Amino acid sequence: MTFARPSGRTADQLRPVSIQRGFTRHAEGSVLISFGETRVLCTASVDNKVPGFLRGKGEGWVTAEYGMLPRATHTRSDREASRGKQGGRTLEIQRLIGRSLRACVDRGALGERTITLDCDVLQADGGTRTAAITGAYVALVDAVNGLKARREIKRDPIFGAIAAVSVGIYKGVPVLDLDYAEDSDCDTDMNVVMNDGGGFIEVQGTAEGHAFRREEMNALLQLAEAGIAQLVQAQRDALAG
Amino acid sequence: MTFARPSGRTADQLRPVSIQRGFTRHAEGSVLISFGETRVLCTASVDNKVPGFLRGKGEGWVTAEYGMLPRATHTRSDREASRGKQGGRTLEIQRLIGRSLRACVDRGALGERTITLDCDVLQADGGTRTAAITGAYVALVDAVNGLKARREIKRDPIFGAIAAVSVGIYKGVPVLDLDYAEDSDCDTDMNVVMNDGGGFIEVQGTAEGHAFRREEMNALLQLAEAGIAQLVQAQRDALAG
Amino acid sequence: MTFARPSGRTADQLRPVSIQRGFTRHAEGSVLISFGETRVLCTASVDNKVPGFLRGKGEGWVTAEYGMLPRATHTRSDREASRGKQGGRTLEIQRLIGRSLRACVDRGALGERTITLDCDVLQADGGTRTAAITGAYVALVDAVNGLKARREIKRDPIFGAIAAVSVGIYKGVPVLDLDYAEDSDCDTDMNVVMNDGGGFIEVQGTAEGHAFRREEMNALLQLAEAGIAQLVQAQRDALAG
Amino acid sequence: MTFARPSGRTADQLRPVSIQRGFTRHAEGSVLISFGETRVLCTASVDNKVPGFLRGKGEGWVTAEYGMLPRATHTRSDREASRGKQGGRTLEIQRLIGRSLRACVDRGALGERTITLDCDVLQADGGTRTAAITGAYVALVDAVNGLKARREIKRDPIFGAIAAVSVGIYKGVPVLDLDYAEDSDCDTDMNVVMNDGGGFIEVQGTAEGHAFRREEMNALLQLAEAGIAQLVQAQRDALAG
Amino acid sequence: MTFARPSGRTADQLRPVSIQRGFTRHAEGSVLISFGETRVLCTASVDNKVPGFLRGKGEGWVTAEYGMLPRATHTRSDREASRGKQGGRTLEIQRLIGRSLRACVDRGALGERTITLDCDVLQADGGTRTAAITGAYVALVDAVNGLKARREIKRDPIFGAIAAVSVGIYKGVPVLDLDYAEDSDCDTDMNVVMNDGGGFIEVQGTAEGHAFRREEMNALLQLAEAGIAQLVQAQRDALAG
Amino acid sequence: MTFARPSGRTADQLRPVSIQRGFTRHAEGSVLISFGETRVLCTASVDNKVPGFLRGKGEGWVTAEYGMLPRATHTRSDREASRGKQGGRTLEIQRLIGRSLRACVDRGALGERTITLDCDVLQADGGTRTAAITGAYVALVDAVNGLKARREIKRDPIFGAIAAVSVGIYKGVPVLDLDYAEDSDCDTDMNVVMNDGGGFIEVQGTAEGHAFRREEMNALLQLAEAGIAQLVQAQRDALAG
Repeated sequence: MTFARPSGRTADQLRPVSIQRGFTRHAEGSVLISFGETRVLCTASVDNKVPGFLRGKGEGWVTAEYGMLPRATHTRSDREASRGKQGGRTLEIQRLIGRSLRACVDRGALGERTITLDCDVLQADGGTRTAAITGAYVALVDAVNGLKARREIKRDPIFGAIAAVSVGIYKGVPVLDLDYAEDSDCDTDMNVVMNDGGGFIEVQGTAEGHAFRREEMNALLQLAEAGIAQLVQAQRDALAG
Repeated sequence: MTFARPSGRTADQLRPVSIQRGFTRHAEGSVLISFGETRVLCTASVDNKVPGFLRGKGEGWVTAEYGMLPRATHTRSDREASRGKQGGRTLEIQRLIGRSLRACVDRGALGERTITLDCDVLQADGGTRTAAITGAYVALVDAVNGLKARREIKRDPIFGAIAAVSVGIYKGVPVLDLDYAEDSDCDTDMNVVMNDGGGFIEVQGTAEGHAFRREEMNALLQLAEAGIAQLVQAQRDALAG
Repeated sequence: MTFARPSGRTADQLRPVSIQRGFTRHAEGSVLISFGETRVLCTASVDNKVPGFLRGKGEGWVTAEYGMLPRATHTRSDREASRGKQGGRTLEIQRLIGRSLRACVDRGALGERTITLDCDVLQADGGTRTAAITGAYVALVDAVNGLKARREIKRDPIFGAIAAVSVGIYKGVPVLDLDYAEDSDCDTDMNVVMNDGGGFIEVQGTAEGHAFRREEMNALLQLAEAGIAQLVQAQRDALAG
Repeated sequence: MTFARPSGRTADQLRPVSIQRGFTRHAEGSVLISFGETRVLCTASVDNKVPGFLRGKGEGWVTAEYGMLPRATHTRSDREASRGKQGGRTLEIQRLIGRSLRACVDRGALGERTITLDCDVLQADGGTRTAAITGAYVALVDAVNGLKARREIKRDPIFGAIAAVSVGIYKGVPVLDLDYAEDSDCDTDMNVVMNDGGGFIEVQGTAEGHAFRREEMNALLQLAEAGIAQLVQAQRDALAG
Repeated sequence: MTFARPSGRTADQLRPVSIQRGFTRHAEGSVLISFGETRVLCTASVDNKVPGFLRGKGEGWVTAEYGMLPRATHTRSDREASRGKQGGRTLEIQRLIGRSLRACVDRGALGERTITLDCDVLQADGGTRTAAITGAYVALVDAVNGLKARREIKRDPIFGAIAAVSVGIYKGVPVLDLDYAEDSDCDTDMNVVMNDGGGFIEVQGTAEGHAFRREEMNALLQLAEAGIAQLVQAQRDALAG
Repeated sequence: MTFARPSGRTADQLRPVSIQRGFTRHAEGSVLISFGETRVLCTASVDNKVPGFLRGKGEGWVTAEYGMLPRATHTRSDREASRGKQGGRTLEIQRLIGRSLRACVDRGALGERTITLDCDVLQADGGTRTAAITGAYVALVDAVNGLKARREIKRDPIFGAIAAVSVGIYKGVPVLDLDYAEDSDCDTDMNVVMNDGGGFIEVQGTAEGHAFRREEMNALLQLAEAGIAQLVQAQRDALAG
C-alpha cells in the first residue's frame, strides 16, 4: 500500500495525548496538554468581575487568549507583544476557543465572574488550537470545581464536555489529527469542536488546494467524531486522576 | 403552519440580490452588491507589486480588506481607524475573503501583481461577509478582464466562480441567507463558500445556542448549495450585462 | 480666449450638486452628496451621552469623523484602520467639519446628547471636505428633526445653515469649486465655510505655488460667497424634497 | 474708552519679540524665540537623505515637527509620547509649519537633503504656532548658511523670509498677536503666514463665536500685514546680530 | 602624567553645576539644571488626584516622565511621540527618576495628590538622568513649598534631599560625572542616587567593556559620595537663593 | 533566634536550582530553569542576519526578549500582546538580559548572525530576571555548540560564564536569592550579574524602604558572590550532563 502518514500513524489514529493538571501553581486551573509534540499550557483564571456589557445582569463570562512563544515553532516568529499587536490568526483562534468553551457553560449559574482561559503554546507541531480547546476545558473544570469547593457557586455551571480535533485530506486520504508535516501539505484542513453528546459546536473547513466535496466532508466529520470521543475520554481520565 | 421568517421568505429563499458593476470610477473593478438590505461596495485594485514573501517567484497575490462604515449598523460602532486597530471580527472576515477568492485564481497566470479586494459595508443587515465574497468575485473578474484587454496578461488566471451564502437554524428550521433579525436569534449560523462546480471552499459553522447534529448540518449544506447556484447565476448575469 | 478649465466649466461655475437624503436606513440622518464626481456619504448618529468634559453641564456636542475608502482615489491608499492610525490630513479635516457644524448649533437646546457626523468618501475628485460639510449639514438637520418629531427636544438647536466650497487660482485665474485636475495643479487653494447669512465660519487658504495677494484673496472670497449661496439653496431644496 | 487688552497693549501692538540664536549647540540651527511669555525652541537639523517619494529626483525636503512640553501650559497635559500618538492639533500645526517654510525654499538648490525643523514649546501663552514658524525660519537660515559655508551647496536655496502672526476679534475689536487670555475668549482667531514681499502663504481663520464678515477679515489681514513686517525686521536683526 | 579627561577635569571633579529655579512660569516647580553642557528642564506639577491603585488610601504619589528633544543630541533622534511609543531607555530612566524621588517623600503627609516630575532634556552631553534626578528634587521642593504656603498640607512630606551622579572607569581610572565623550568610551558606567544622609537609594553599575572588580566598585562609590555631597550643597544653595 | 525566612532557608542559601536542557525541540538552545518555584523557559534562536547598525561589519549580535505568561503570577496580569505594548518593567529586564549575555560573547568570532534569547516566565516566585540570565547562558552555549558542531564558526565566541542572583535586606538581615514573599516585603533589593571570574557585569540595587549603607551593600555583594559561584557550578553540571 502506497499511502503512509509521515508519523506512521493510521488514518484514524490520534497522536499520543497527555493531560497534566496542576502544571503551574497560581492559576485556579492549570493544564499542560500534549497532542504528540504539540504542547499547550492552558490556565483558567477566575476574576470576580464581568465585562461592561454584562454588568448587573447576574451572568458570568468565559473568554480566552491565545499566544505562541516565539520559538515554539521551527523558525522564530516575532513576539506579538513586541510588534505591538496580536495578528489576525491569533485573534481568530482565541475567539474560537472562547466561543467553544462558552458552549458548555451556564453563565447564570456561574454568576458575575469571568473565567479567562490563557492558552500558550510552548511547542507547536500542528493542531495547537484543537489541543488548546481540549486542554482549556480541563482547566475550566478545575477552576469551577474550586469555586464549588469554596461554596462560591451553588449550581454546577458546566454541562457536558468540549473537545476539538483537526481532520484533513492528506495525499487524497482523510486523516485524523494532522501534525505539522501533514498540515503544511494537505488539501483540506478542518477543525471540529464537539461536545460529549456528539453535537457539533464549531466546524471550520478550508480547502487549501482543491475544493472538497460533500462525501469528503462526511468522511472527515466521521473521523472527527471518533477522535473526539477518545479525547473526551482522555479528559475524563485526567479529571478522575 | 406556525413557522415564519421575519421577512416572510420561505426557508430556501434568498433575499433579492443585486449586483451593480462600475459603482465607482477609479478602481479596476467596482461592484455594489446587495443581499436585501445588506449593501457592500467591493473594489478590486491592481498593483504591479507583490508582498515580500512572493518577490521574484513569478506569482501574483490576491488579498482582501474588510470594513464597516461606523453607521452601517443599527447603532453606531467606533471607527476602527480611530480606535487604532482592526478588531478580531474584521481580521477574521478579511482573511476569509482573501482565502476564498484565491481559490479561483491561478497565481502563476496572474504574474507578479497584487489584486486587493476592498469590501466596505455601506449598510448591514446580516450576511455582510457572504455578500462581500460574492461581490468581490465580480470585481475581481472585471479587474482581470481589464488586464487581459490591455494585454498585460496572457492566460486567464481565473478558473471557475466563487460565491458565498449563510445558512442557519432559525426557530428549529434550517433557513437560507439569514438577515439580521434571524442572525441575532438563531441556534446555528454557518457561512459556506463554494465554487461553481459544487465544491466547498470554506465551511464555517457555529452553534450559537444548541449544538447541531450531522443531519442538521446536511440540511444546511443542501440549502447552501442551492443558494449558491443562484448566486453564481446572478454573478454571470451581472458580468454579461 | 485661452483660459479653459479641464471640465469646461466657467470660472464661477459649481459642479453639478446632488443631495440624496435617506441613502442608508439605520442612521438618524443619511445623505449622499455629490459635487460632480466627488461623492461623500454623510451620516448623523444621535447618542444620549456627551464626552467627559461636558458631563452634567446640560449641553450637547456635535463632532465629526472623516474617512476615505481605500479606492476612492486614483491609486489605492492604505486603509487607516489597517495602518493603525488616522493620518494628519484626516484628523485635520474631521476637526474642520466638527468645528464648522458646531457653528450652527445651540448646544444648550440640543441637551446632553452627542451627534456624530461620519463623512466617508466613496469617490474622490477634489473638494471632499467641502462636500462633506455641505452634506453633513443636511444629515444633521434630518437627525435633529427626528428628535423634534419624537419630542425629545423642545427648542430647535439649529440656527442658520452651513455650507462650504473650495476656491483657488488655476492658471492665474480665480475659479470656484476645484476638481482634482485643478486641485493638483493650482497656485492657491482655499476652503471657505460660510453660513446662510453670509458670515464666514472658516477660511483656510494655502499658497501652493506663489504667494497670493490681497486682491486675489478678495476675488476668491467673492467666488466663494456666490458658490455657497447656491449650495445653501441646494440644501434647502433637498430638505424640502 | 472702555476697550482694554488684558496685557494693556494697543490693538495693533505685538508682544515683545526676542530671537536668540545658538540656544543649543548640536543642531545646525537653534533658535529660542519668544512672543511675550510664549517661548519656543526651534532647531533645524540637516540630514543627507530625502523621503522615499523624492529619492533620486535631485530635490531636497523641508519638514517640521511640533511638540509641547507637558507643563508648558497652565495645567499639565499628557505627554504625547506616553499616550502613544500625536494629537490632531499637533499634526495640524506641524503640517502648517512645514508647508509654510517650504514656501521660501528652492528645493532643487537644496539638493538631496532634508532639513527637519523641530519646534518645541517650552512655555505657552498663545500664538505658539506663529512663534514657531517665525523662529523656525531663522533656524533654517542658520542651517543653510552652514551648508553654504562648508560649500555643500552652491546656490542659496532660500528666497525671501517667512513669518507668522495671529490676529483676532477680541471683545469686538480686531487685535494683533493674541495672548492666551485673549485667545481663550475671542470671537475670531486667524493665523496668517506671509513672506517679506507682502504675499500670503497661509490664512487660517476660524469663527469661535459669531461668524465674521468680510470687512472684519480685511481689518484682521491689515493688522497681520503690519505685524509681520515687524517680525521680518526682528528676524533680520537677529540674523545680522 | 599620561591620564587626562577630555574636558581637562580631575578625576574627582564635577562639571560646573547650575540650578535655575522658576525657569518656566506655569509649573508649581520649574528648574533648569545644567551639568556642564547637559541641560534638563525639570518641572513639578501638582494634581489633586491619585492613580487608581491608591484611591481612597489617603496617600499621595510622585511619578516622573522623561523626554529628550529630538535635537538635544549630536545627531537628531526620532521624536517618540511620532514613533508612537517611548523606547526602553526612556521608560527605564523615568522609572528610575520616579523611584528615586519617592524615596524622600512621606506619601501620607502629601495626601491624595500626585506630583508629576517632567524631565525634558534640552541639550545632552552625558549624565542626563542624574541631572534630571538632581534637578527634579529642587522642583519637587518648590512645588511642596507652594502647597505648604497655601496651607494645603500640614506636615512637610519631604525628608532629606536626593541627588544623583554618574561615575565610571575611563581609560582605567575611576572618574566622577562622565560627559558624553567619556561615557561613549568607558569600561564601566555607574549611576548612583543618594540622600543627604549618605544612604544609597539606587546603584546601577554596568560593565561596558571588562567586568569590574569589588575594589573598583568601592573606588567608584567613594567618588560618587563626594560628588553627591557637592550636588546636595548646590541644591541647598539654589533653594536658599 | 527571632529571624526566619518564610521558606525556612538560611540567609545565604539559594533555592533549589534545576536546569533542564532540551526542554523544547525547535530552538537551537532550550532550557527550563527553576529557582525554587520560579520557572523560566529560555530559548536561544540563531538567525543568519544582524540588525541594520551592524550590517557588513563582520560582527554578530546577542539580544534578549522577556515575557511573563499572564497567569505566571498570583493574580492574572494583562497579556502585553493584547494591551499592544510591552511595559517598562519588561523592556528594562530584557535590556538587562541582553547586556549581561553580550558580556561573555566575542561578537567577531560569532560572525554576522544574531542569537535571540527568549526568556518566558512560566511561573513566578521572585527572581525571574536572575533565573532568566542564568538559564539563558546555558541556552546560548547550547546554540553556539551547535554552530561549532556544524562548523559554521571556527573560534568559540563564548568566554567565561555569566550568572545572576538577587540579594536583599529582609527584616534587617542581608539574604540571598529572594523569593516573592521576601521580595514584596524587603528594604533593599539588588540584582547582581557576575562572570565566573568573580567580575561584576551588572549591579542594580534599589532601596525599597530605607536607604542602604555601604557596609550593607558590601554584605549583599558578598552573598551574591557566593551564590553566583554555586550557580556557575550548576550551569557547568547541566552542560556536562
